Parts: sequence; structure tokens; C-alpha cells
Amino acid sequence: MTTKKIIMDGDPGHDDAIAIILAAARPELDIIGITTVSGNADIDNTTRNALKICDLVGLNDVIVSQGASKPLVRLRETAPSIHGDSGLDGPDLPEPSRSWSHEHGADTISRLAREAAEPVTLLATGPLTNVALALAKTPGIQANINEIVLMGGGTSGNWTPTAEFNIWADPEAARSVFESGIPITVMGLDITHQALATPEVIKQINSIDNNVAQVVGELLDFFTSTYQETFNFKSAPVHDVLTAAYCVAPELFTMQDVNIAVETKGEFTAGTTAVDLQGVTGRETNAKFGTELDVDGFWTLMINALKTY
Amino acid sequence: MTTKKIIMDGDPGHDDAIAIILAAARPELDIIGITTVSGNADIDNTTRNALKICDLVGLNDVIVSQGASKPLVRLRETAPSIHGDSGLDGPDLPEPSRSWSHEHGADTISRLAREAAEPVTLLATGPLTNVALALAKTPGIQANINEIVLMGGGTSGNWTPTAEFNIWADPEAARSVFESGIPITVMGLDITHQALATPEVIKQINSIDNNVAQVVGELLDFFTSTYQETFNFKSAPVHDVLTAAYCVAPELFTMQDVNIAVETKGEFTAGTTAVDLQGVTGRETNAKFGTELDVDGFWTLMINALKTY
Amino acid sequence: MTTKKIIMDGDPGHDDAIAIILAAARPELDIIGITTVSGNADIDNTTRNALKICDLVGLNDVIVSQGASKPLVRLRETAPSIHGDSGLDGPDLPEPSRSWSHEHGADTISRLAREAAEPVTLLATGPLTNVALALAKTPGIQANINEIVLMGGGTSGNWTPTAEFNIWADPEAARSVFESGIPITVMGLDITHQALATPEVIKQINSIDNNVAQVVGELLDFFTSTYQETFNFKSAPVHDVLTAAYCVAPELFTMQDVNIAVETKGEFTAGTTAVDLQGVTGRETNAKFGTELDVDGFWTLMINALKTY
Amino acid sequence: MTTKKIIMDGDPGHDDAIAIILAAARPELDIIGITTVSGNADIDNTTRNALKICDLVGLNDVIVSQGASKPLVRLRETAPSIHGDSGLDGPDLPEPSRSWSHEHGADTISRLAREAAEPVTLLATGPLTNVALALAKTPGIQANINEIVLMGGGTSGNWTPTAEFNIWADPEAARSVFESGIPITVMGLDITHQALATPEVIKQINSIDNNVAQVVGELLDFFTSTYQETFNFKSAPVHDVLTAAYCVAPELFTMQDVNIAVETKGEFTAGTTAVDLQGVTGRETNAKFGTELDVDGFWTLMINALKTY
Repeated sequence: MTTKKIIMDGDPGHDDAIAIILAAARPELDIIGITTVSGNADIDNTTRNALKICDLVGLNDVIVSQGASKPLVRLRETAPSIHGDSGLDGPDLPEPSRSWSHEHGADTISRLAREAAEPVTLLATGPLTNVALALAKTPGIQANINEIVLMGGGTSGNWTPTAEFNIWADPEAARSVFESGIPITVMGLDITHQALATPEVIKQINSIDNNVAQVVGELLDFFTSTYQETFNFKSAPVHDVLTAAYCVAPELFTMQDVNIAVETKGEFTAGTTAVDLQGVTGRETNAKFGTELDVDGFWTLMINALKTY
Repeated sequence: MTTKKIIMDGDPGHDDAIAIILAAARPELDIIGITTVSGNADIDNTTRNALKICDLVGLNDVIVSQGASKPLVRLRETAPSIHGDSGLDGPDLPEPSRSWSHEHGADTISRLAREAAEPVTLLATGPLTNVALALAKTPGIQANINEIVLMGGGTSGNWTPTAEFNIWADPEAARSVFESGIPITVMGLDITHQALATPEVIKQINSIDNNVAQVVGELLDFFTSTYQETFNFKSAPVHDVLTAAYCVAPELFTMQDVNIAVETKGEFTAGTTAVDLQGVTGRETNAKFGTELDVDGFWTLMINALKTY
Repeated sequence: MTTKKIIMDGDPGHDDAIAIILAAARPELDIIGITTVSGNADIDNTTRNALKICDLVGLNDVIVSQGASKPLVRLRETAPSIHGDSGLDGPDLPEPSRSWSHEHGADTISRLAREAAEPVTLLATGPLTNVALALAKTPGIQANINEIVLMGGGTSGNWTPTAEFNIWADPEAARSVFESGIPITVMGLDITHQALATPEVIKQINSIDNNVAQVVGELLDFFTSTYQETFNFKSAPVHDVLTAAYCVAPELFTMQDVNIAVETKGEFTAGTTAVDLQGVTGRETNAKFGTELDVDGFWTLMINALKTY
Repeated sequence: MTTKKIIMDGDPGHDDAIAIILAAARPELDIIGITTVSGNADIDNTTRNALKICDLVGLNDVIVSQGASKPLVRLRETAPSIHGDSGLDGPDLPEPSRSWSHEHGADTISRLAREAAEPVTLLATGPLTNVALALAKTPGIQANINEIVLMGGGTSGNWTPTAEFNIWADPEAARSVFESGIPITVMGLDITHQALATPEVIKQINSIDNNVAQVVGELLDFFTSTYQETFNFKSAPVHDVLTAAYCVAPELFTMQDVNIAVETKGEFTAGTTAVDLQGVTGRETNAKFGTELDVDGFWTLMINALKTY
């Protein structure tokens, strides 16, 4: 079996955390670095959360680098209504056993990508600031990144009527990434809203007798409660986890080649992804866009992964 | 039975035409004027088409006024790929028996609204240029318009990935209408895409033994073929007809009070309606937005109306 | 001598008023209509002011029509800090002897232009809402308008750092006018700021022994005081008067053929006119732009005109 | 005498080069680093040019770091019509004696600023990409930068009718810098167009008998010829040099405290600096803006500096 070298850039965050947990469990994926960004919570919290999850799953040798504390151009906004003040409210995790690297997250992405023997895969589950910084600072880095699998955007929004949080939080960064020429695979709200952690799913997870699964259960309980209060969802969608699942089992995903343009200038629509599903714009395709998830297959993958801990 | 005085402003157009046909058949509605706008086709065609439909259904005494030949600010674009060059390709209708009024459509809207004993209802099934012109020229006209029931917008688009044709064709006019303070009822793509003229529906219509139903059948045949070619739909949605159906039978429609903001400045999103279904913007509601249609009830209404001819 | 038929559209306004006074005094110009727009003050005030000035100078037979009470799309803003609450604070003018026409200002522009034997000249000294409405409502009106001489814009602003009041007040209307294809002659701040009513000028005007000159003197006194307070100018520039002066004596004006694009979308720059004096944009010229005024010649023209009353 | 520690970030470029030459000559300034950015030419050329100038003036121990090869978000554009293909056409300078640092320019700015005992002064004479990257990557760097003295913007433009090249080339970066909270001192076109290298000035420089002055003379000859051809100027303005001159002799400059907002969203006005000289916006001041130069004093300073070589 060949393993895929991946760098995980995100803002953990409940679903980012579970994405790391899934990726760490799977032999097909070799996590060579974790970088953090401001988003669901401020940068110190998201970095601490990443380290806590590394401790939880035993990723003791993987570099964890802190990245951007604010968007490229805009002011920072976080999402405490969804993730709590810590960004990872719910389970009572021990303080991290180690500190983060002195290297900036954007530089870690560039360095790891350039040092790798083969082009790496970048999973991006937060605002795209670090990725844009890496692109801005490192000419030619495109050649060292095989694919960016990101959670963001969709044909409708959650943070505004038309924009999803990750893209909305740093539209300029997102635009830069979508125009980079690197193959982009997008898990937008259209598909992530299919990955709902229903009571049945949570019950199955809770029945797994190990610490990691217990933490995931607690994460999902908290996430469910905020999704119920804020968005009036019955169950919470585990958005970011789909990036990791896709790297392991792309056959669970129906994807469509589309053009996606990121709006940076609108008065009411900043951060909107114009996903050209019908091909009406005449613009060239620049992304694969997830439209349909094999829901049962996805949760089976997730639950089996948790059982390996 | 009280009748509702309505002014129909549109750009016929297959579905605009059928909206007139439905409205003319129903005793609850009293069409006091028809005004035309550039949109599906150029203004001379849409006006001629309105007159042809008046002849077809015997609206001989209703004023037909020609309105704006281009959007408020932007350049004109029409939709021949959907409606043919005439705007009403398909049936072979006789040339109109009369000409249009010398009064401009926007002025007809204002005059009829001010002359009416009670505030009127405005059905708008094209770009909103005439309505915006009436608002711009007639201070206080708001008091004379009870409600604007319009076809336009939605949570996703058809002419661009995020914008529906009517709003996209004149976003500045649409913005002006949505900010006018007049109660706005919106039939957007979310609900109009539920009103599909399926083969079964068309078959039922074709079996009605009168000329009007035959013409509607031919309109739907043409409309189906362009929707199949351009949008890859199996059946064509009869968008505009829902405005008339709503005035007759609002109980067929599930509506939600929302704020809708019209994007006029975006680089990729001009004409997008940001429909705040989740209440995430904090902006005050300014529209009723159609979310679910009683499809069977709708087609029963339509078919029964056609049988009255 | 051939006379030039002119329609004066404006928002009087001190300098609009003096523009009418100059035009009415000159035999080369035949004022065939005056239309008003919201701008310096609300529409009832600007219309009343136009009528007062007609009484003052004996324009008893010229139609005065009230036009738009608000911009095409944006919210209305007026300029009481410059023109006082009435829009014409300063002199104590009698109430108008007549009322305004029932015809809307935009329709008056279109009708007069179409009825004239030769294409007319349109002087526009306020926000361009009426002109845009006329263009929007009257296809082909371009052929009936020889030239639009307007006060607006410039290479820097007064109402915002980069935008002049008339254009800023209705950028969408301005854009529509500049893109209409009608020859546009622009008196922007670059040249109007050269036409300063210095104490010497005001003294000369005050020494003219007739009622009209006395009123002009009082208008200039008030205008000077607000320009001193608001803009820290020593003397007030009589912006709008240049449109009339240009029609009488174009030889006093150095003009440059340029492209002018009107910004409608900027976050900080709405209403900015991008005047391409260096030809750096590659866009085709669409306007004559005033760069230098023969200041002495201008004031001589003005003072001689006042002496004829 | 206390010396001021400065970092020079730019895109040499004729006037950037002369700015380095002036700064290197003056004992009040201690150049602790030079960083380069894409702008007048591509990044390899601007970096090579910086190294050549260091060789010319003997800045052998100053770190030269290559920075951003493209703007934060937009596509790269350079200015060969003004600076030639090399970015420094004109004199025949030897190839650099050394290579640039392995550290990225943005990181050099951050590191030098944080290592310095006192807050440093940053001179920025190109697009502001590196500065924005440093701000984006280094939280709290504001405390280590005393002042940014930059060449950019103005009340009118040169690259577009309303935008100056440096700001236009990366408006998002500029916006980020102007909103950073660091004291900003702006040499915009209003003041840099006063610093013209007239034939008299060039003659004086040519009469100085040293190699550096000869190179400056040749730079000015080339720069004059392109300004004559492209902008129809008689003499070339030595924009960037004013940043260095200001650090040495601020008494030569009349400065005004203003608010400056950078337009990133306009259709025709991207990169425009809205300089609120009249205080009409009500926004808080965030910059010192140069309005008037003691031209003789400036050239005396420059010529005396050249004589020291």
C-alpha cells in the first residue's frame, strides 16, 4: 500500500479535530505536518486544540506549527457560537504535553511540501490564510502540492445567506488559492450537510470502548447542541471530516468538475463561492466539487477508524 | 366575492404568457393593466407578445403599455436561448389586433395605482425596471400598492451560478424595489423549480378541447425543449405562473418571512439575492419567500382554469 | 444670430440659480424648459427655488417641471450645510407666482427634446437622475439631444475625498448618462474651482443697480459664508454657472477630450469620476472636460449679463 | 547624533535606487536591511538591482532579501514602459558581487524589527506586499515599527486616472498596511511630482566627479526619457527618494494629518487612495500626507549627499 503524505491546515474546531482523528487512524495517510489558523477560535486556541488532539491520538512526532492570527486583509472574526470560547468546548482534554514549533504555519507548509520526495496533499479545513501566505511567499510551490482538499463554500451559505464561514472569513485568501492553478477538491456545504451526526451515529460511537471514541462522542454532543441552537439543525454536520474521508475513500463521493469563483467585492455577498454547476459562465473548470455522499459508507469508515484506537 | 385589482408587469415570455392566461381565467382577479419590459426578448417583442395573449384570452379592454427598453443602468441582455427570438416561440399566434398605449409602462403602473379606489396588487414577472421607474418618478406611490408579487431570485441562480435572470438583468432596479418598503412576495427559483410541466401535465393540458389550452400546450412544448437543451432539465418550470396562482390560492404556497438583499456590486455575483432563511444577518425581514409548493394543487388550479376557456 | 434651444435641469441651489440668471440674460440662449431634481435641497424646495428665479428674471412662459425626488437606486441626501435648509438661503425672495407643471421633469426633458425642430442642448447642474430617467424611458432620445453640458465630477472630490456632490448623489444615473453616447461636456471641480466669487467680483456685482444683481450679490454672500465654514475656501466657486457660460462663450474654456468612467461600486469611491487625462486607460473618449477657465473673461461675461437686467 | 535604524523595502527601480543611494550617504540613517518586491520589474530583476546598488555604494554588509514575487491576491503587473525591462535600464552596472539572502523579505523585515533595540523605521518604495505579509505573519510586529514612510497614492493617479502604481499593484496589501495602526507617512504623487529632476538638476549632478553621481545622472537620463514618452512630463519626478529625504530632513516637507482609505473593490478605481484633506469623511486620521516640498532644499540635500561619495 502506498501512503499519501498529507499536511493538515485548519482551525480546530470540533470537525477539524475529528478530521485529524480520522486521518491519524488510517494507514493510507501519513500526516507529515499540522498547521493552524485563526478561524473557529483565535490562533492560540486553535493551536492548543491541535496539540491536544495530537496527544489524544499519539501524533507525538508530527510538527504542529502556528499560522496566521488574522485574515490577509480583513478583520478577524471567530465562531464561538458554534465551537465555544475555546474552539473545542465539550470534552475535558488535558493541556498539551508540548508546545508548537517556532516555524510559522505557512512556512511549514512550504518547507514540508518542498522537502517531500513526491508532491504532497494539503487538507485545508479552516480559512485559507496560511495557504495563501505560502503561495504568496513561495514561488513555484504549486509544483510541490498535488491537490488541495478543502472544506469551504457551497451553493448556499451558513455564515451569511450566501457564504460559508471558512471562505467568508478570508475571501482574499480563498480567491488566491482558487486561482493558484493547484488542483482543488471542494467539500462545500452541499455535501457536508449530508454528513450529519445523527443520534444513531453518536450512539454507535459512544458504544466504542476507547478514549478517542469517547472524546469524539463528547465533541459531537457539544457540536449538536450549538447547531441546534444557532442553525436549528437537528444534527450537526461534521464538515471538515470529509476532507480526510475523501483522501481515504474517494469512491464514497460524487464529484463534479466545475468552475468556482470567489467573490471578494460584493456588498452582501463577500466570500460567496459561485459554483458553476450548469456551466453557464463559460469559465474553465478549476475545482472538483462534492455533490453527493455515500452517507452510510462514510459513517462506517468513521466508526471503523475509531475502533482502531 | 371580492376581486383583487392587479397590474401585470412582465416580459412575455412563455411563463409570463401563461401567467396572464391563468389570471384572466380567474374571477378573483381583475387585470386592470398590462405593462411590458425588456427581458426575455426586446421590448417590441415582449409588448407584441402581451397583445397577442390579450387577443387569445379576450382581454380586449385592458390597457397594454410598453415600458422600459433597457435596464436602469446596465446594458440590455435578452434570453433567446430559452424563449426563442420572438420571446414566445412555439405556437403560431396571429399578429395583435391592436397597438399598445402611448403611455409608458412605468407611468401606467403609477396612474392605475393612484386612480384605483383601493391599493392594487402588482404582479412582476420580468426585470424590475418599470417598477423601479415608477418608484423613482412617483413619490408616495408606495401607498397605492398593496403588495408586489414577483418572480425573481432564489437561493441559487440560473443565469449565473448565483443569480436568477430577472434580478440579474437589472439588479439596480431590483434593489430599489426591495428597499421600497412595499410588501414584497417572492417566487424564487426555490419554489418555481417545483412547478415543472411534466409530460403528464402537458398531456392533461393537451386533452382540453379549447384553443387557449392548445396554445399553452404548444408554449410548454417549446419551453420544455429549450430547458432540456440549455439547463439539462427534463421538464420546464413555469416560473412566472406562480405569481398569479399565489394571488388566487395562497394556501398552496409555504412562505417564509425573510430579509432579501440584492447584490449590485459583486464581481461574480451581481443580481444575487441574499435570502436570509436562517436569520443570520440580523437585517429586518422585507419579503415573503416561497419555499414549498403544493404541486398537485397548483396544476389542478391551472388545468381547471384552462378548462374555463 | 442663431439661438441655441436649451433645457436646464438642476437642483437650485445658489449656483444653479445664477446659471439660470445668466442664461436668461443672453440672447444666444433660448430656455425652453426648466426641470428640477432633488440634490442641494429636497425636490419641493429646489422646484420652488426654480420658480422664484423665473419670477425674478421674468421667465414667465417657460415650463417648470418637478422631477425626481430621490436618486435612481440610493437613498436621498441633500446639502444644507452649503445651501441652507431652503436650498437658496440668503436673499429674501417672494413666494413663486405660479406652480409647477403636472408633467414629470424627466418627461418634460424628453417631450421638449422630441418636439424641437433641431436637437436641443441640455444643461445639467444637479444629480443626473432626471436625465437618466429620460434616457431609461425614451428609447432614441439620444438623437434629439445635441449635447449635455453638465456640472459634476473632476479629478478630485468635494463631498468625499474623491467624489463631487452631483455625481456622488446618484452615481448610477451618472453612469447611465456617460454611457449614453450623447456628447457630454463636463464642468468638473478642476475648472469650477477657478470660478471664484472673490470680494472684488462681489463688489462689482453689488454696484450694479438692479434687483437681479442685488439678489445675486446676496446669493454669493451666503454661498461664500458656507464655503468658508465647510470647505475652508476664502471665496465660493460658482460651479453651475459655467455650464451656461460655456454655451454662450466656449472660447473662454480650455477643454480636453477624455474618457470618463463613473465608479458605482467602490467601497470608498462611489461617485468618483475617473477622468483619463493622460490616456492611460485605453478607453475611448466620451467627454469634453474643462481644464482651464479664462477667469477674467468669465466674470466679465457674468457682470455684463447682470447689467442687462 | 543619534542614527535612525531603517529597513528599505522596494522594487528598484530608478527612484528606489536613488533612495538607497541617498540613505547610504547620510550618517543619520543606518540601513539595517534591504528587501525587494515585485513591482517596477519582476522580483529577480528588482533584487539584482538592489544588489547592484549596494555594490555601487559599498553597502556590503547589509542583508538583501528577496520578497514577494506577486501581489497578495491579484495578478502581477510590472512597469517596463517606465523602468525598462531590467527595472533599472540606463547605466551599465556590473553584475552583483553577491547573492541575496535565503530569508524571505517579509521575514527579514519582521526579524530585523524584532531584533532591534528600538523600534525601526520602514521605508517602503514599492507595492506593499512584503509589509502586508510581515503584518499577516507576525502578530504584534506593530510594536517594533516606529513609522512606515512610504511612496504611494495621492489625490490623483498615474497608472490609472485615480490610482498610483505602487498602491494599484497591490491594493489589498496597501489596505492592510493603512489599517495596521502603525504610524504611516505618505509621499504621494501630490508631493513627489514636485521633485522633478530638471535639466539644471541633472547638470549639477553630472558635474559631480564620482562614480555614484555619474550613475545617478544616467539613471535620471533614462527616467526622464520614459517620463517624457509615457506621461508627457518634461522632467521625471524622483518619487521614492522623498522617503529617504524625509527621514533625514523632515523640515523640508509640509505634512498634513489625514485619513487615507484604500479602495480595493471599485470597478474603475481599484488602488485609489481616498485622501481626506478636507476632513469630510469623519474618519480618524491614520497618516501624515506630504503636500508641499521645499524643492531647492531637497535637491541641495541630494546633491550634497552625492558629493560625499
